[in-house]
Amino acid sequence: MSNYLVMKFGGTSVGSSERIGEVAKRVVRQVKKHGDKVVVVVSAMSGETNRLIELARKVAGDGYKAREYHQLVTAGEQVSVALTAMAIEREGLPAQSLLAHQIPIKTNTVFGQNLISEIPVDKLKSLLDRGIVPVVAGFQGVNDSLEYTTLGRGGSDTTAVAVAAALDSCRCVILTDVDGVYTALPSICKKARKLKALTYEEMLELASSGAKVLQTRSVSLASKFKVPTLVCSSFSDAAGTEIVEEYEGMEDAVVSGITCRTDEAKITLRNLPDQPGVAARIFKVLGDAEVVVDMIVQSEGSSGRAAISFTCAQEFSKVAYDAMLKLIQQEMSESSIELDTNIAKLSVVGEGMRTHAGVAYKVFEVLGEEGINVDMITTSEIKISVAIEEKYSELAVRVLHERFIERPES
Amino acid sequence: MSNYLVMKFGGTSVGSSERIGEVAKRVVRQVKKHGDKVVVVVSAMSGETNRLIELARKVAGDGYKAREYHQLVTAGEQVSVALTAMAIEREGLPAQSLLAHQIPIKTNTVFGQNLISEIPVDKLKSLLDRGIVPVVAGFQGVNDSLEYTTLGRGGSDTTAVAVAAALDSCRCVILTDVDGVYTALPSICKKARKLKALTYEEMLELASSGAKVLQTRSVSLASKFKVPTLVCSSFSDAAGTEIVEEYEGMEDAVVSGITCRTDEAKITLRNLPDQPGVAARIFKVLGDAEVVVDMIVQSEGSSGRAAISFTCAQEFSKVAYDAMLKLIQQEMSESSIELDTNIAKLSVVGEGMRTHAGVAYKVFEVLGEEGINVDMITTSEIKISVAIEEKYSELAVRVLHERFIERPES
Repeated sequence: MSNYLVMKFGGTSVGSSERIGEVAKRVVRQVKKHGDKVVVVVSAMSGETNRLIELARKVAGDGYKAREYHQLVTAGEQVSVALTAMAIEREGLPAQSLLAHQIPIKTNTVFGQNLISEIPVDKLKSLLDRGIVPVVAGFQGVNDSLEYTTLGRGGSDTTAVAVAAALDSCRCVILTDVDGVYTALPSICKKARKLKALTYEEMLELASSGAKVLQTRSVSLASKFKVPTLVCSSFSDAAGTEIVEEYEGMEDAVVSGITCRTDEAKITLRNLPDQPGVAARIFKVLGDAEVVVDMIVQSEGSSGRAAISFTCAQEFSKVAYDAMLKLIQQEMSESSIELDTNIAKLSVVGEGMRTHAGVAYKVFEVLGEEGINVDMITTSEIKISVAIEEKYSELAVRVLHERFIERPES
Repeated sequence: MSNYLVMKFGGTSVGSSERIGEVAKRVVRQVKKHGDKVVVVVSAMSGETNRLIELARKVAGDGYKAREYHQLVTAGEQVSVALTAMAIEREGLPAQSLLAHQIPIKTNTVFGQNLISEIPVDKLKSLLDRGIVPVVAGFQGVNDSLEYTTLGRGGSDTTAVAVAAALDSCRCVILTDVDGVYTALPSICKKARKLKALTYEEMLELASSGAKVLQTRSVSLASKFKVPTLVCSSFSDAAGTEIVEEYEGMEDAVVSGITCRTDEAKITLRNLPDQPGVAARIFKVLGDAEVVVDMIVQSEGSSGRAAISFTCAQEFSKVAYDAMLKLIQQEMSESSIELDTNIAKLSVVGEGMRTHAGVAYKVFEVLGEEGINVDMITTSEIKISVAIEEKYSELAVRVLHERFIERPES
């Protein structure tokens, strides 16, 4: 292992001049105590990105172009990197802030998402070799014309992991306002406990199922490049959660965590024509409308005609509903459509599920005992997700947590 | 004349989302009504640059590096250009914001000042030819490593004039919170009136003598490249002040304007050795300390030993004083030093002074009648400046304004 280390600080961690001072002290301690060659990645000061988006909304409603949105919001990270570099210098180490175009962090646009395509490390290595701490703006990228792009909400995590992946055998520490990854959200489930370690795949399933600790894309990247990643608090020295390829006893517990997200909506199409290709037609139309579909259930109706339900993010639900309504009116005039935003998606995740059977059965059993109806279900090798009525979501998390985490032997 | 036009809006003019909306309307009106190919240049929203500098001060005291200061404060213009481009689009014209590194506006550093060395216009022209309004970030520059530099307080004026100079025969309009250049500061002198026109040289003398309407450097640039420049209000349609090579009747009035600045300090060295080269030694030391000296007076003392007084900006006065004190202690032990920050520098400016004699005499006479002692004096072909006690500054402006502007025939 080299002694390269990327330390990423989130918006709350750099939320004020005092906190930026604390960040600087922590970075300097790391460098001086461990001799690490540290690259710092920071987000915008908390609240700043929202302030800028609100200004844009006041000026232009919702009608602004992506290009100008990116020019605008990247100013947030520009401020925080410069201040963080100043603070590190004040603590006695030379530092230099770097914006996306100064490295450059190049991105490609794929299906409306900006993905990092390249991070040359010459400049970073040259600074590190001279004992200078590079302070890299998270969230920012540039395209080939050096126009700013952005990596989505939480994109600084992805910047941090991508920088670590670009440097040889570099570790990555995500310092945030929570002290690690929990078995469930502690605000819902008092008995939730912090996990010592998770595999990349577990973290990926948890992040994409609603755990907000890390941006999902940053976890895929860490997994792809095998970047050892640690999530811990920037406000304490408590041990955090390690995210690694494998850890000791990783299959001992069947379930590592339980998540819940309530930001999806369900659309149901009933009385569909009983013809081959109807489902394909529906999802082709949704794809053309750029709606990302999550869960899908197809069922036989009583009259022999089919019904299809699917979920998508609530923010896309209006687009999806309108597209489906148009489709029905034009091509399937006997069918009906229904939109339900009161759903919750619960996910039970764990490496142990690869080797333990019967988890799905237990999920149904536990929820059934509480009178909670399971509406839809999807599974992966290490995850089971179910859609239920939103009002039961906290209760469902607690009973599943009790069953799988608190007394797994039962 | 081409139909290129640079419209520059200052910080107050883009100080809120509503005002940015007004700016957009004005730009669109100009394009639609006159068919002009308009390049917009904007400053940071008013208060923003100060907010960022205050953050830097909180984080790092005064100890931060110029490089990080530039990274920090240029974020202000990044926000305002993006918002202005959004607002122009909302008013129905395509627009694109451009940061310094995206054009690029290249600067060289000369004696601690960043001077624009090059503005390639390919990108600007290509946008204009396609009917897209470029919205350029004022104040920002980049060096060869694409690191941000800044053009000093009021530097957006210089950006605007430099962009106009780079485009073929392009006019420049500076839209600001005053509606033109006045014969004196209206807050001091109620009878001050707006000037219809000024020569570049008059404006240059006024700007460098304390008129805050335009950054001095922008006027030199306009003069050098003969950029026709108009100063007017962004809040009204009142006619502004034209700044041109020559205007009709420009020598009719002896004096065009009277300015006053109170941000200078005077240092006096007494009982200096009566040797050749003493003055040279003094100003060599000041030059090495990067102190820019303004007025200089050398006089014979009573004992035959010389005295030298000079003024410089108050912000440099401590550096200048310390350098002089050290010089005296080391090389001129019998000499003494004195610092006076209670001085005002009054300037009387006018193209007419080229052909009218006796202005200096009248200045002394008018001030003498009020019992105001003239301490130092410097002149140029079209300017007379005097240093007086600061407490008399407003009175002096009023009596000089009355004598030269209100009843010039007397």
